[in-house]
Amino acid sequence: MPPIHALAAKAPGAKLERFQYEPGPLGPGQVEIKVASCGVCHSDLSMRNNDWGMTQYPFVPGHEVAGTIAAVGPGVTSAKVGDRVGLGWYSGCCHSCRQCLGGDHNLCVAGEGTIVGRHGGFADRVRCQALWATPLPDAIDFASAGPLFCGGITVFNPLVQFDVRPTHRVGVVGIGGLGHLALQFLNKWGCEVIAFTSSDAKREEARRLGAHHAVATRDDAAIERLKKSIDFLLVTVNVSLNWPAYIDAVAPKGRLHVVGAVPEPIPVGAFALLGAQREVSGSPVGGPRVLGDMLDFAARHSIRPMIESFPMSRVNEAFEHLHAGKARYRIVLNNDLA
Amino acid sequence: MPPIHALAAKAPGAKLERFQYEPGPLGPGQVEIKVASCGVCHSDLSMRNNDWGMTQYPFVPGHEVAGTIAAVGPGVTSAKVGDRVGLGWYSGCCHSCRQCLGGDHNLCVAGEGTIVGRHGGFADRVRCQALWATPLPDAIDFASAGPLFCGGITVFNPLVQFDVRPTHRVGVVGIGGLGHLALQFLNKWGCEVIAFTSSDAKREEARRLGAHHAVATRDDAAIERLKKSIDFLLVTVNVSLNWPAYIDAVAPKGRLHVVGAVPEPIPVGAFALLGAQREVSGSPVGGPRVLGDMLDFAARHSIRPMIESFPMSRVNEAFEHLHAGKARYRIVLNNDLA
Repeated sequence: MPPIHALAAKAPGAKLERFQYEPGPLGPGQVEIKVASCGVCHSDLSMRNNDWGMTQYPFVPGHEVAGTIAAVGPGVTSAKVGDRVGLGWYSGCCHSCRQCLGGDHNLCVAGEGTIVGRHGGFADRVRCQALWATPLPDAIDFASAGPLFCGGITVFNPLVQFDVRPTHRVGVVGIGGLGHLALQFLNKWGCEVIAFTSSDAKREEARRLGAHHAVATRDDAAIERLKKSIDFLLVTVNVSLNWPAYIDAVAPKGRLHVVGAVPEPIPVGAFALLGAQREVSGSPVGGPRVLGDMLDFAARHSIRPMIESFPMSRVNEAFEHLHAGKARYRIVLNNDLA
Repeated sequence: MPPIHALAAKAPGAKLERFQYEPGPLGPGQVEIKVASCGVCHSDLSMRNNDWGMTQYPFVPGHEVAGTIAAVGPGVTSAKVGDRVGLGWYSGCCHSCRQCLGGDHNLCVAGEGTIVGRHGGFADRVRCQALWATPLPDAIDFASAGPLFCGGITVFNPLVQFDVRPTHRVGVVGIGGLGHLALQFLNKWGCEVIAFTSSDAKREEARRLGAHHAVATRDDAAIERLKKSIDFLLVTVNVSLNWPAYIDAVAPKGRLHVVGAVPEPIPVGAFALLGAQREVSGSPVGGPRVLGDMLDFAARHSIRPMIESFPMSRVNEAFEHLHAGKARYRIVLNNDLA
């Protein structure tokens, strides 16, 4: 195999620079994807900075990959060269733990992250287990597909896992890379949708994306009026909120669900849970089955991320744009490395 | 109607003393229960002390009632004089809100507590809506029935609400009035059961009650060894625990569930929820449907509370015994008031 041309950070916080590595022979059950484009997720930035203490350097980010199968390893029957596929946060699992056996490959005790201890998709090629290279519907182009594989699946997965129903009133807190997809999914899911955003401009846009109502994130009086009315409240932000007020807005038997990396513990009052039988939960990206269902759903309902494109070689500009909070709503890098 | 002979506190923390009140005519849809016995719950003590700021005085405690229907109001067809019934925390609901219409009468927005703003079961008679006087199976005697109506249903209800399965590994934290019933229910539910208790003596008893394993509540090393292994962790205590350790013991897709009135907010880390798709939740006592199912289940499996009996007139001694943490495991007052 020829070397892989990638972009890597050599140390925490360092700019990405060109980097080549020898991938070695393709292992049994593995595939190699020729990267057409790759979305940029905030986790790429967090990992580049070693915010979570698990980054290995040189570090190649990229876990919103879209491309085509370039090669398949021994024993692979589920994919063939030329297939259009996507790859997200996970690139491998053990296939034998209780979770894998139950169809929850995304909860595998030995799950392998695409950019954790291995090199990701800011490269001309990237590898994964065949199971994790999810086929793309024809209707979804590469640039639109990438962001669905992390931002999209992160907000779609809980709708499946926690049985959100079309008769539910749902809230989405934070209209960014994840939230702008959540609004679209939930509108087509049939729900009544309330967007919570700190930006006046985004409130208008939230309505265009599918929200029936829009509320300012810090408007305590407006949140108070929603008391006990929201069946499913999806928190996509990674900052602390007025948690008691948000939990109070959750309906009896309802749920506050977190998918953002909120740094401080969320203070959950027992009485707020007890009386109304409320739940507080979180979830990671979905597994292969849910990824496939999400892509079908997105294709059927013309759900796409709103993207801004950069050539992959200008990744450092893209990172700065993201870090400045300016991305509307997801950045995609088109490959110009090879 | 003759006056009702009851026991009431005249002020927060005051001893109970004899008290009579005129109940007036029995309203439509209501029944009057002749109280044979009444369990003593820690909430009776909390309410007597106005710990939750919602007590009205004179205050008549008692919400674990067992007895017979003494009279039925206009329109009642579901009960007749002489029926053996029980009455728990709730005595009324609106029958028309979203929760009542969905079968969740216990989550009614206007639910009426048996001892909240009205007089409870430490009396010769007590009233409720007919719906809330749940028929007792013949096999369950009055003294055993009472504690099932609050202590029992509080731990049985979540098994139904949250779909605990016989293949699950479950934990019960706190082996007292609630926990000693939870162990029995869960053993017969088919689960693998782990008891957590701070008392060495209770660890042995926990095994006799149905636990397969028993762990000391504050044994951090033992809890650490359970990491990611407990599908359903039922917390019946009302004190703070080493929450991060207990949440860590919850399996992927598992749940930490609170039914005790834990005073401080539980600090819930987003990462602990996210990665393993965990849930934290709470629930109140169950509604009429689940009460009926619990009684059938208890009758079929010979599940009974372990009780200590006092004459109702000696309620103040009973309260002291409970307050001292000496109850093994539930106190029942046998009526000698009339």
